[in-house]
Amino acid sequence: MSGLRKTLAEVAQLLGAELRGEESAEVTGLGTVHNARPGQVTFLANEKYTRHLPETKATAVLIRPELADQCPVNALLLDDPYLGFARLSHLFDPQPSPEAGIHPSASVSPSAHVASTAFIGAGVVVESEARIEDGARIGPGSVIGVRSHVGEGTVLAANVTLYHDVVLGQRCRISSGAVIGSDGFGYAHASDHWERIAQIGGVRIGNDVDVGANTSIDRGALDDTVIGDGVKIDNNVQIGHNVEIGEHSAMAALVGIAGSTHIGRHCIFGGASAIAGHLKIADHVHLTGMTMVTKNLNEPGVYSSGTGVESNRDWRRSVARFRQLDDMARRLRQLEKKLND
Amino acid sequence: MSGLRKTLAEVAQLLGAELRGEESAEVTGLGTVHNARPGQVTFLANEKYTRHLPETKATAVLIRPELADQCPVNALLLDDPYLGFARLSHLFDPQPSPEAGIHPSASVSPSAHVASTAFIGAGVVVESEARIEDGARIGPGSVIGVRSHVGEGTVLAANVTLYHDVVLGQRCRISSGAVIGSDGFGYAHASDHWERIAQIGGVRIGNDVDVGANTSIDRGALDDTVIGDGVKIDNNVQIGHNVEIGEHSAMAALVGIAGSTHIGRHCIFGGASAIAGHLKIADHVHLTGMTMVTKNLNEPGVYSSGTGVESNRDWRRSVARFRQLDDMARRLRQLEKKLND
Amino acid sequence: MSGLRKTLAEVAQLLGAELRGEESAEVTGLGTVHNARPGQVTFLANEKYTRHLPETKATAVLIRPELADQCPVNALLLDDPYLGFARLSHLFDPQPSPEAGIHPSASVSPSAHVASTAFIGAGVVVESEARIEDGARIGPGSVIGVRSHVGEGTVLAANVTLYHDVVLGQRCRISSGAVIGSDGFGYAHASDHWERIAQIGGVRIGNDVDVGANTSIDRGALDDTVIGDGVKIDNNVQIGHNVEIGEHSAMAALVGIAGSTHIGRHCIFGGASAIAGHLKIADHVHLTGMTMVTKNLNEPGVYSSGTGVESNRDWRRSVARFRQLDDMARRLRQLEKKLND
Repeated sequence: MSGLRKTLAEVAQLLGAELRGEESAEVTGLGTVHNARPGQVTFLANEKYTRHLPETKATAVLIRPELADQCPVNALLLDDPYLGFARLSHLFDPQPSPEAGIHPSASVSPSAHVASTAFIGAGVVVESEARIEDGARIGPGSVIGVRSHVGEGTVLAANVTLYHDVVLGQRCRISSGAVIGSDGFGYAHASDHWERIAQIGGVRIGNDVDVGANTSIDRGALDDTVIGDGVKIDNNVQIGHNVEIGEHSAMAALVGIAGSTHIGRHCIFGGASAIAGHLKIADHVHLTGMTMVTKNLNEPGVYSSGTGVESNRDWRRSVARFRQLDDMARRLRQLEKKLND
Repeated sequence: MSGLRKTLAEVAQLLGAELRGEESAEVTGLGTVHNARPGQVTFLANEKYTRHLPETKATAVLIRPELADQCPVNALLLDDPYLGFARLSHLFDPQPSPEAGIHPSASVSPSAHVASTAFIGAGVVVESEARIEDGARIGPGSVIGVRSHVGEGTVLAANVTLYHDVVLGQRCRISSGAVIGSDGFGYAHASDHWERIAQIGGVRIGNDVDVGANTSIDRGALDDTVIGDGVKIDNNVQIGHNVEIGEHSAMAALVGIAGSTHIGRHCIFGGASAIAGHLKIADHVHLTGMTMVTKNLNEPGVYSSGTGVESNRDWRRSVARFRQLDDMARRLRQLEKKLND
Repeated sequence: MSGLRKTLAEVAQLLGAELRGEESAEVTGLGTVHNARPGQVTFLANEKYTRHLPETKATAVLIRPELADQCPVNALLLDDPYLGFARLSHLFDPQPSPEAGIHPSASVSPSAHVASTAFIGAGVVVESEARIEDGARIGPGSVIGVRSHVGEGTVLAANVTLYHDVVLGQRCRISSGAVIGSDGFGYAHASDHWERIAQIGGVRIGNDVDVGANTSIDRGALDDTVIGDGVKIDNNVQIGHNVEIGEHSAMAALVGIAGSTHIGRHCIFGGASAIAGHLKIADHVHLTGMTMVTKNLNEPGVYSSGTGVESNRDWRRSVARFRQLDDMARRLRQLEKKLND
């Protein structure tokens, strides 16, 4: 859809790949190994898909050198074909790139700064003292709160909300419906009701951070909520107040992180995992999906919880027994004593 | 609230019901069997509510023929009273229906097509080459991305976001805060950081699909994300890239479906269930709430996971024992050996 | 950041605290006991932080009278320092307070009522017969549906959506991305497809209710969805149709409550808990995070479910055994019989 055409020689040069095949062959897009059409490039990252190679209709395959002999079409040799594919993908992205400028229907405060190379979409609101840096793009309907800062080359999709005093670094991508800087969930109990605690901190987000659709990141209570460089956050995630996330950690959709928990660097959290508040999670912790974390995890490694799916009939039996576990354990101990006597 | 008045004869004709009672009695609304006021119609779909029948103040009851004798007021006889109620409900819906036309504050690209019978609300943005078909309604603040397509009679509530290259069929209903076509969560790992993979696919949604508030549906990485005809998706749901959902499946709130998983037809997923990526789920699979699915489900049926609620004191004991389960199983085996010797 | 300066004498008077120290010392903000800088007030609510007291750089500490002797700086004596801190926090909140008035880019229906002391932000849409009362503030991009009502002093952040016939009480705070009054998930099954049931009820929300970012609250099917006074709801929460929540209950992020469930007063639900539909939950029920509730909870108390995090290796063993639990229980019973014979 992007209309772009590249020769294989150009693609090879772009990726630093060795080409075995026709230099002048033209490619116009990307496809999966079994769905690619002529004119498309595909990749072989997972050996279990090698069986699809013989039938591929792709014009060329990104492939590791040791598998090149099995490639029936043009081969682009790379040690990490998936990474090569990632880099190539941007050439063929049909996502439109709007031209710089401020849409006439936008409301930009006179005290805000908008770089001349930035794009401000229809209906956008930029409040007082906000700053939108060079090459930043603010999609239609987004709101940038007082004193907030959108770094160079950062892209906000449509209908994103930044509250006041939110700082986004460079080259971030914020998806539609994301909310950054909302009030943390902080209340003091006063005999028979809750009294709200003003959330005075802000949010500081590093460079190259992605935030998914309908994800919420709360501002800090006193200090800031802090997201490190290179962190990737999926859709419908909740980040509580004063959470800190170390660099290059990634968390899948529907993850929830409660207030004041500190996550290390290079962590990977499977979808729908929930981490309680005031915890510390070490670097390189990997949670499988739907894991419930209620204690510090001090060592790197893979962690899990839950029982996994069963037929409802079997599950009903297992769950009934789960509630008898303590009793079963005591009875087992009794039997052991009896037999040892 | 709708101000509409119908006689029971008219209601009976509309539903194809047999009326036992006063043809000229007027009804102006609907109510539950125990809360309905005179002038309202109610229904008896669940036999356990039969005990409320003697006291109902409703003017008429939608009821199965075999229960008609127990109905103390006018009876509208139908084999499926709940379905009759569903059909009748639309008569009395107070939801406003705006008139066709484009609000002056909307921003519609000159290259977009908006049917003359469509409604475009205040502050709506319709980007280039988008198409809004006959009778479609786009609520205030919604954004329709480049080349996206809203089919005949499809209704978007306020503040909905469609990215570029999203196709919605006919008679769909998209709730506020829903985001369709956001980037899939696709990255390649490059030594010490993540590199984003451009999400080049689109989203194709069939006819009669409902999408709930604050639900996110990601665009495909290479091929499209595909939602079949008649699928019903509740609020705050996450649909990952390249997910495919078969026709007439329904999923309750907070469900998450990770990338490239294919769901069959006529499935029903309880709320907060999470399905891992790259799986296949058969037709007619029913998940109870909060089920964690990490493997293919090849057979229709009801599936579950989790442990169910207990008092915290009992639960602490059970969980402690859960971690000793492998040890307990080995000791049990030992005892069996000893006794058999 | 707020620029405000107060003397300790003024702070003491405001909070009804006894001051041990310098009346004329000036404070300009708040900090945590270990991060506070000179000029800031901190608090000691949790005795485990007493160890940080000797090094605090705060100008004053909110502290219980019995700990005053351990305070190395000015002390403000209060029985509930955390509550005092909550009240003090609002003085130093940098959140901007816009002036009353209607932004020229807003679309306000001629039949709507907007109090002269209310604030209506840029791009806001107020539909017909809606009412915005004194001192209410509607953030940029928010939409107020037909006949909806925003009570005195209630604050909607940017990009909030109220459907038609939604009533908000006084002094509520609704965060960005929240959707109130979306259609409940109600369908009747008709042989091979689902038929939608019009959602005719509304939403009634009491006074002093907070609703978090990207939270969805559905309108009722026939009767209203009802949220009591003082209820606090965090981010990305789902409230189904006809749910009722008793006064002063609080629920953390990612909680889901299915349709027609009634929650008592003063409940506290940990994050990511899910409650099935048509249940009754008593007053003062406390759920720990990620609890799955599938039955009525008739007694106050703390409840839990799930298995808690383990290393993936240990967890795989435990889960395998979980599925053998029924078999293990039967074998245990056999052994007991044998030994008793």
